[in-house]
Amino acid sequence: MTPADPDYERRARDSFARQAVMSTIGAALEAVAPGRAVVTIDHRAELTQQHGFLHAGIVATALDSACGYAAFTLMPADAAVLTVEFKVNLLAPARGPRLRCEAAVTKAGRTISVVDGRAVQLGDDGQESLVATMTATVMTVLGRAGLRH
Amino acid sequence: MTPADPDYERRARDSFARQAVMSTIGAALEAVAPGRAVVTIDHRAELTQQHGFLHAGIVATALDSACGYAAFTLMPADAAVLTVEFKVNLLAPARGPRLRCEAAVTKAGRTISVVDGRAVQLGDDGQESLVATMTATVMTVLGRAGLRH
Amino acid sequence: MTPADPDYERRARDSFARQAVMSTIGAALEAVAPGRAVVTIDHRAELTQQHGFLHAGIVATALDSACGYAAFTLMPADAAVLTVEFKVNLLAPARGPRLRCEAAVTKAGRTISVVDGRAVQLGDDGQESLVATMTATVMTVLGRAGLRH
Amino acid sequence: MTPADPDYERRARDSFARQAVMSTIGAALEAVAPGRAVVTIDHRAELTQQHGFLHAGIVATALDSACGYAAFTLMPADAAVLTVEFKVNLLAPARGPRLRCEAAVTKAGRTISVVDGRAVQLGDDGQESLVATMTATVMTVLGRAGLRH
Repeated sequence: MTPADPDYERRARDSFARQAVMSTIGAALEAVAPGRAVVTIDHRAELTQQHGFLHAGIVATALDSACGYAAFTLMPADAAVLTVEFKVNLLAPARGPRLRCEAAVTKAGRTISVVDGRAVQLGDDGQESLVATMTATVMTVLGRAGLRH
Repeated sequence: MTPADPDYERRARDSFARQAVMSTIGAALEAVAPGRAVVTIDHRAELTQQHGFLHAGIVATALDSACGYAAFTLMPADAAVLTVEFKVNLLAPARGPRLRCEAAVTKAGRTISVVDGRAVQLGDDGQESLVATMTATVMTVLGRAGLRH
Repeated sequence: MTPADPDYERRARDSFARQAVMSTIGAALEAVAPGRAVVTIDHRAELTQQHGFLHAGIVATALDSACGYAAFTLMPADAAVLTVEFKVNLLAPARGPRLRCEAAVTKAGRTISVVDGRAVQLGDDGQESLVATMTATVMTVLGRAGLRH
Repeated sequence: MTPADPDYERRARDSFARQAVMSTIGAALEAVAPGRAVVTIDHRAELTQQHGFLHAGIVATALDSACGYAAFTLMPADAAVLTVEFKVNLLAPARGPRLRCEAAVTKAGRTISVVDGRAVQLGDDGQESLVATMTATVMTVLGRAGLRH
């Protein structure tokens, strides 16, 4: 996939840095490439649900940002990305210690793009296991002041 | 809808109190009734995305808890609730200052229940507007130690 | 909700009549109003899955058309409607003898609209029961020859 | 992935043959393997929507059967498969002449399995293109007379 703007990585990293919630939950944009993004998040007690696992919504938060920035890398320099909808399937408890959310654009459209993501858990034993999958529909928004970046 | 356990409200409130992430994001279980739950969350700068709105994942976090506890009210006393999957449609930016996430069970099954939720924004002008909708599929889990509550 | 084109009903009925699959499965556009549409379908042996119920995909087919035309009623006269994605929850077996698929627009946007639908079964005893729910995201397509209507 | 029943293919083919709707829409179970199934469907005028493409619901019907039988291959001999919910993203018009719906189990659980499917179009020029993706949540149902197979 070819980025419309060669400067896509800097734009994606700048925008991610402006997502205050990412630093609140300790999520980092580990990697970004044309049509792809990886967001990692460490297990923290203050992000858990009643059984001590990462809350499904926090997994969704990290996955949604990964999906959004994967699509963002292919958009024009003056575009903003908006999530239209997403669906998450929770496959296993997010026990930690670390979750890697990988997203890849499945279809890049002029207005609507579809991105698929997976949250993979890196266990203490070094084994990887799939924790959740997401399909997100995102929109390219052009020329709306206030929504830029 | 009839709760299987008359003590459903105390169980739901106790379980909600154990979701550490709820206090991290400042979400409260405003109301709970058989097949229904309402979770509120206030706008905070540290929960926002790049345009200053509540991040879609945070809206999903509050909606998911509302949906889960709505289903939980109808479950037996020794049951745990697990989210199988959810889908969110984002309809308008979550500007704040407050979001009310209302969930109601659409189908209560022995194993699988389906819950629909809506996130309504209370604007500064007192006007309500719909910010997001969720459909969640949740599972009743019985007798698995470690997943209780 | 206010239709952009006063002639919305005729346009919706004409377009529905061009959906060849609707007559193949015996579905009818029972009613159409601004932001709303109702599609009915009768139980037929040739539309069933392995247990004799209407196949989930056929329920989805009728619901998707109901959702699409509900949104279509609010679109400009030269617009076409395209389904971006939909999600269906199957709540009970579609035993028949008749299914009524009701759709209502939840959010009408310039480009993207969100429509919620429900498939209600009319039992032999006159009792209604909910068989399935759908949330559909549809797109308004303007000025693309070949996609009109 | 290991099938619980070595006779999984015969069971899957027998069950598919009982889905009357599959022969109505001309769909065939092309291949079945542990955790996988492929359903093909040819373009037919009587299955189209208003622009002459295969109706999204028909694409969903073929994909849902592919997903269901992919999961069914891993289930015990006396199990029935039930679709709990599915989500479809429509990525491109299904122009034909043939659609191949491939499904693979992402997570095989005791009660709940998650299956991902993709509908690939085989163009007249021999080129393949992605038409739709599906994520389906299916349930293993044991010991309920009347739902067997």
